[in-house]
Amino acid sequence: MERIFSTDLLAKDGQRVRIAGWLHHQRQLAKVTFALIRDAKGIAQVVIEDDSLREQVGALLPESVVEVEGLAVRTEQTPGGVEIHEPQFRVISTPSELPPFELRRPTLNVQLPTLLDNAAVAQRHPRLQASTRISAASVGGFRSTLDGLGFTEIHTPKIVGSATETGANVFALDYFGRPAYLAQSPQFYKQMMVGALERVYEVGPVFRAEPHNTARHLAQYTSLDAELGFIEDHRDVMAVLRQVLAGMLEAVTQRCPRDLQLLGIELPSVPAEVPSVHFSVAQEMIEAATGNQVIGEPDLSPSDERWIGDWARRQHGSDFVFVVGYPMVKRPFYTHPDPVRLEFSNSFDLLFRGMELVTGGQRLHRYEAYLNALAGVDVGPLDGYLAAFRYGMPPHGGFAIGLERWVARIVGADNVREVTLFPRDLTRLAP
Amino acid sequence: MERIFSTDLLAKDGQRVRIAGWLHHQRQLAKVTFALIRDAKGIAQVVIEDDSLREQVGALLPESVVEVEGLAVRTEQTPGGVEIHEPQFRVISTPSELPPFELRRPTLNVQLPTLLDNAAVAQRHPRLQASTRISAASVGGFRSTLDGLGFTEIHTPKIVGSATETGANVFALDYFGRPAYLAQSPQFYKQMMVGALERVYEVGPVFRAEPHNTARHLAQYTSLDAELGFIEDHRDVMAVLRQVLAGMLEAVTQRCPRDLQLLGIELPSVPAEVPSVHFSVAQEMIEAATGNQVIGEPDLSPSDERWIGDWARRQHGSDFVFVVGYPMVKRPFYTHPDPVRLEFSNSFDLLFRGMELVTGGQRLHRYEAYLNALAGVDVGPLDGYLAAFRYGMPPHGGFAIGLERWVARIVGADNVREVTLFPRDLTRLAP
Repeated sequence: MERIFSTDLLAKDGQRVRIAGWLHHQRQLAKVTFALIRDAKGIAQVVIEDDSLREQVGALLPESVVEVEGLAVRTEQTPGGVEIHEPQFRVISTPSELPPFELRRPTLNVQLPTLLDNAAVAQRHPRLQASTRISAASVGGFRSTLDGLGFTEIHTPKIVGSATETGANVFALDYFGRPAYLAQSPQFYKQMMVGALERVYEVGPVFRAEPHNTARHLAQYTSLDAELGFIEDHRDVMAVLRQVLAGMLEAVTQRCPRDLQLLGIELPSVPAEVPSVHFSVAQEMIEAATGNQVIGEPDLSPSDERWIGDWARRQHGSDFVFVVGYPMVKRPFYTHPDPVRLEFSNSFDLLFRGMELVTGGQRLHRYEAYLNALAGVDVGPLDGYLAAFRYGMPPHGGFAIGLERWVARIVGADNVREVTLFPRDLTRLAP
Repeated sequence: MERIFSTDLLAKDGQRVRIAGWLHHQRQLAKVTFALIRDAKGIAQVVIEDDSLREQVGALLPESVVEVEGLAVRTEQTPGGVEIHEPQFRVISTPSELPPFELRRPTLNVQLPTLLDNAAVAQRHPRLQASTRISAASVGGFRSTLDGLGFTEIHTPKIVGSATETGANVFALDYFGRPAYLAQSPQFYKQMMVGALERVYEVGPVFRAEPHNTARHLAQYTSLDAELGFIEDHRDVMAVLRQVLAGMLEAVTQRCPRDLQLLGIELPSVPAEVPSVHFSVAQEMIEAATGNQVIGEPDLSPSDERWIGDWARRQHGSDFVFVVGYPMVKRPFYTHPDPVRLEFSNSFDLLFRGMELVTGGQRLHRYEAYLNALAGVDVGPLDGYLAAFRYGMPPHGGFAIGLERWVARIVGADNVREVTLFPRDLTRLAP
């Protein structure tokens, strides 16, 4: 008999079935034991009335791996609407000891460090499983949207000979006796590939030797990067990003209905036109409304971002808002200036509920513009990158979404580590 | 007017159109100039008869980025079956100099080091573009097949506190003042996640400090990893792998017909039942046929693999063949032994046309089995991994496909570097 998943039981009412999974919990009443079997998709309730079997199952540790054959029976009382009667158990694998915390609890009531120290076990909890599936669905939606728009997936080097962008916060490594660094982003490579394939994306790890332990920073995170050529300006990039976000949310909706229900989440919707405000206008509004002196600052503070997020919700009914035109001084050297107001840039941040989620913009595309932007810098190590511009590049731009931040916002996690399988930070290098 | 791709021209016969791309080549005849415009999807031929425009375009360097408006006209002679007449040119971006080689040649006739030194330009060549698209389609097929089989995508750490498997050939890095290493595979993590989600896959970079410069080794490559729980033995893994390979080839067939045509490739087909031979039987056949003394060797040599590949083609008409049951001594510590013949393992290699393409097998799943397998080893650094087995794990197994090797075999490249965007090896760290 072929094994089926717990979520397929309802369709098997009245039939003999075989399930397999982990002994999630057992409730022993006076005359009956309810054993909960957890598999990759959900939890099945098994009703044990035979005394010798009750005793045998009663001796099993939680997380024992078992196979159960029995009769699927629809019931009104059981959460899943179905339970298994007349069961036969086969123990497949026996744990060596009790887990460090009770996985049967609806929420894992343990401190984050304990959870992360025991990640291999913690990830078995249904709520953490749900986050992982929402993450996977989000990435699936990212890719399928871009595939539909004619983008090509690429895989680029994570070991580079010179620090990618700023030079700060890079991990150094010994590369066959030479110094090398872990890439902080695929920025240079995705731009180079616009010269070949016009529209490219990459899903991959990026590395930041972030010297602070905050709730939103990781030493390694998964970056969802896209870059496209033959644009007019940054607004074409923003239009693609809007489609991508809608596609990511649609994929989560389609693929994870049970996970959304378990976590009690209502997904945001992306408006057909995401509201957009220029950086300088945003500052004027904030200063007028709050009295805080922000005009002239080169960047928005977290509280400024929250104000803009509230404004977007109030004025436009949107969880998402673009802030465009950040001052050039705060943007990386490859940023394209606003051709009319040169101190501002053709770049943007996308805020989600008042927090930065995506950064993007138009890039420089003329070789001379790069030489100007890099005046005073030794461009030797950048020669392979600059070659793309030396031999003809179209106007282009792109964006990067931090996957863990995205999932944290979607599921309402306070700390990105809660939705990262095995996070890496200032102090954490295991498991 | 909206820009269209060169491949959409045929459907626009008789209409005014706008295309954009790179000036791939121009042929100047006595009274007419044929300008070839390359975009992400193909090459369009533009017919210029106006003398002043001929002169203007004649002055453009190859790889100039241009926009062309004109009339789409079906013709018999043009390769694409259509050309653009009465064109107007707009130059979008001008190269600074001539490219280091002629991209217009059907095949880039340059030495590999030159090609790789100038990767940003070389990748513009239609044949290299085709390889990249075939790579992307392959990965797409890998994922969609596994998604369909209930696998969940994961992203795991690439920085680890202890060398992943063998301890040899790892890159060391400074992790906030502590020693750390680049992961050689996601092996431990995908196994741990079987404990949570049962079926997982990851597409990501892996790192090998490979001290030899061979045609098939890279310091970083893209590993397509899958792992699944609740198997009987390695044969369940092989069955999933067969589906995955068929899905990858199907995706390439569907998504890359023009690329396959350009490269002149006929894709292999995966038989419904991939032939399979036990390691010890393979050695007996080889020794009987060739007279070479191979019985007793713990592994197959490349020439042994070629012999088996020929045998599979001759006897079974298959480009693919499984060799199963490699001796335990040559397999990593987590390998599950053959329960009947303990010196052999429940592992396999998949050979494609006589070369190893995939390695996989069943893993140990009992905690005690790991302690036995690691007897004499300090298991402290492995504790987070071993925890998965301490708390109940089902029988499981998996496999890993090296993406670059796969693409090299598919397109017939002699060296994996030819199909890697920006390869990393013993000497190469740029671009």
